[in-house]
Amino acid sequence: MQGRLLIQSSRRLASSSGRLCVGTRHLLHPHISVISHNCVLNQRSMSQSTGFKQGPHKLLVIPGPIEVHDDVLFANAHSSVSHVSPDFIPVFGDCIRMTRDVLFTRTGQPFIVAGSGTLGWDEVASNLVEPGESALVLHSGYFGDSFADCLETYGAKVTQIKAPIGSAVQIDDLKTALQQKKYKVVTVTHVDTSTGVLSDIKAVAKAVQEVSPETLVIVDGVCSVASEEIKFDEWGLDVVLTASQKGLGTPPGLSLLVASERAIQTFEQRRTPVTSYYASWKRWLPIMKAYEAGTAAYFATPPVNLIYAFNTSLKQITQSSISVDDRIRLHREASRKVKEAATSLGLKQLATDPAFAANGMTALYFPDGIVAGQVLPKLLQEDIVVAGGLHKDIREKYFRIGHMGITAVDSSRGDIDKIVAALKKVIPEATGVVNKTLGAYSYNERAEAMQARSRL
Amino acid sequence: MQGRLLIQSSRRLASSSGRLCVGTRHLLHPHISVISHNCVLNQRSMSQSTGFKQGPHKLLVIPGPIEVHDDVLFANAHSSVSHVSPDFIPVFGDCIRMTRDVLFTRTGQPFIVAGSGTLGWDEVASNLVEPGESALVLHSGYFGDSFADCLETYGAKVTQIKAPIGSAVQIDDLKTALQQKKYKVVTVTHVDTSTGVLSDIKAVAKAVQEVSPETLVIVDGVCSVASEEIKFDEWGLDVVLTASQKGLGTPPGLSLLVASERAIQTFEQRRTPVTSYYASWKRWLPIMKAYEAGTAAYFATPPVNLIYAFNTSLKQITQSSISVDDRIRLHREASRKVKEAATSLGLKQLATDPAFAANGMTALYFPDGIVAGQVLPKLLQEDIVVAGGLHKDIREKYFRIGHMGITAVDSSRGDIDKIVAALKKVIPEATGVVNKTLGAYSYNERAEAMQARSRL
Repeated sequence: MQGRLLIQSSRRLASSSGRLCVGTRHLLHPHISVISHNCVLNQRSMSQSTGFKQGPHKLLVIPGPIEVHDDVLFANAHSSVSHVSPDFIPVFGDCIRMTRDVLFTRTGQPFIVAGSGTLGWDEVASNLVEPGESALVLHSGYFGDSFADCLETYGAKVTQIKAPIGSAVQIDDLKTALQQKKYKVVTVTHVDTSTGVLSDIKAVAKAVQEVSPETLVIVDGVCSVASEEIKFDEWGLDVVLTASQKGLGTPPGLSLLVASERAIQTFEQRRTPVTSYYASWKRWLPIMKAYEAGTAAYFATPPVNLIYAFNTSLKQITQSSISVDDRIRLHREASRKVKEAATSLGLKQLATDPAFAANGMTALYFPDGIVAGQVLPKLLQEDIVVAGGLHKDIREKYFRIGHMGITAVDSSRGDIDKIVAALKKVIPEATGVVNKTLGAYSYNERAEAMQARSRL
Repeated sequence: MQGRLLIQSSRRLASSSGRLCVGTRHLLHPHISVISHNCVLNQRSMSQSTGFKQGPHKLLVIPGPIEVHDDVLFANAHSSVSHVSPDFIPVFGDCIRMTRDVLFTRTGQPFIVAGSGTLGWDEVASNLVEPGESALVLHSGYFGDSFADCLETYGAKVTQIKAPIGSAVQIDDLKTALQQKKYKVVTVTHVDTSTGVLSDIKAVAKAVQEVSPETLVIVDGVCSVASEEIKFDEWGLDVVLTASQKGLGTPPGLSLLVASERAIQTFEQRRTPVTSYYASWKRWLPIMKAYEAGTAAYFATPPVNLIYAFNTSLKQITQSSISVDDRIRLHREASRKVKEAATSLGLKQLATDPAFAANGMTALYFPDGIVAGQVLPKLLQEDIVVAGGLHKDIREKYFRIGHMGITAVDSSRGDIDKIVAALKKVIPEATGVVNKTLGAYSYNERAEAMQARSRL
């Protein structure tokens, strides 16, 4: 079903010029309706619907890429525009400004670069840590190991504090490590996509400021920006790095990073040259400053269409009737619904404590004796695409559900309800707990029955 | 005008299911027609028109990004798909296979990574050259300096042979340099986007094979792949690196590179670790092999939508009735038309010899006494977007026209005719040569008159 196009204009849709459009509905197929345009739609008017509508497809609720709004996809299909054109420069400049708004920073310096989220690690490792300097990595899953690998590639001496699966590093352990040795940077994965474990980055930053205030606080926010609370300036963060395809609701392909003034100063005061070319802030800083100031500059061709798409999504995030704080609250609510449904079905979260549970995703162990092949294909039959396990130690034992962006925020889509309904259908079928008798049980009773069964 | 959407299905368009669609034309505006869908269009059927049609916009004929086909833009607006989904894996795998076809290689290893073309330099510098090893850079413009900077960032000792502006490095100079010192790699910019200078990479490769056969031949093909002839295996190239937004007709955001078996062996036999993380073939090689074999693997999230778009463009390039060789020939013809028109108007190319002139772009000096402000805005009034100068020594003295991809290959678009007509209108106006008398002159006569005037 994926990949079809629907073209739809609302019945009374005001275009940017104020012209009203009237659509005519044609019914062609039970699941597909096509509504013909009879007005010209202007892509600039992103506060209005563009009229572009993606076709029916399976609901993508992995922890990124996430479901993308029609208007964002439409912007990604923008006609080719020169990367130095007067049309494009303010689009890029506004992305830089709105990225600040998402993170509640006035003085942070955004970097918007073609790449995957991973590239943000290279930016940190090659611009902020000089060869031989020490880095402390707080490990709450797969992505801690990877960030450590990246730092070592560029010559950092890395120490890791590893939390048990399902939990974040304890703040006391962090303080002890900081007391024992001087670190140039501390890195923390805000939400580890492999486990859905949330780290308390506010508390991490506070501990660093107390014990080792000169150490830079680096947040891997790939799976948290725009879905978890982040107050960049207020909490004293030095770097938040992320990618476009999760809470920011844009197709993948943009590496995004915000650096504090202190981080930029650290970079500018390096004694040794930056150890990457493509990830070098020496190259990118003048580019970001130029576009924000309304002029073009060239280092490498920016991904123009993705930046149009990102601009569209950022406007939805920062300039709609739902504030960024509201958005975070709506993610919490969506998360609570998914987690409550999972608990009622007897599913156990990887997060060992609610404080360690992300709000943009949920990682759940399969019931005892049940494997992925008994659950994921059945969810797929319900048109729900979730993700399998990723953490190498327990890969086959759990699955992950993403609930970020429009899936969490726009309840009119019904995505959360669909996820919950699919879980309620598929899990009992997989465990064989449901029968005519059990079907009448409450969810708590059913969960108890399943837990009893799993102890057998 | 940019950014509008037209939805159009041809009057008798076969969808992938063979269903025929009939469109109904509505005329709304002199320049804009909207044709309503009354069939469901399937995005998979890229050999047929998808029915998505971008709106009228200024013709983008800078040397990249280039005009992008409607079907490619439509693929870029694909609904979100998991990067590990069975739907996506063959799309990625086919991109890898078709990239080989474009370069006429059976055994080359493609790398398709989120990034700008620049990232390909990091791949070469960090995977193939170990710190302290020597690199010879053949310099024919701006991009030679940049590639040299990149190599030095990762520890290479770089020697440059600099050709005068407008020409490529002489093969004899290359041979002399190779006789004097052993180089791990020789790099050559196939077409330097800053000057439109074409280097004879076949002759470069032959010279290296004669004098220093163990030296790897690295081609920066950012502005040449799919617009200039490249026979990867036959000519014995070791790396061709490029980007998505030029001859390959896809929006910017993909770094593309093909490595020979010998280059991969060189990488595998390194004595020291790879000096980049994000650009490391150690990370990417297993990913490329997995997707080509039909399974998913994870290092960093691939730019899914751009890969759908690239797949669509690659199908047009490698699987249409126009072969890759035909495509190169059509670029030569389009180039000849633009260059002949420019010459007839008295414009001088940067390329000092026809052998040094690219076929995918043309760089032209402004007539004496004329500045960019007298030409480029007037071309813009004719809805033609060209590029200003980029080479730092002569930036204000010239401009650049791109004629790659569908602009060169699909004559039914009339892009080349539009470029030529706009030049013929704007240049004489700018120079003031046209008057009622001169207007009747032949182009050669007009050119002579202009040249005479410029000597005054």
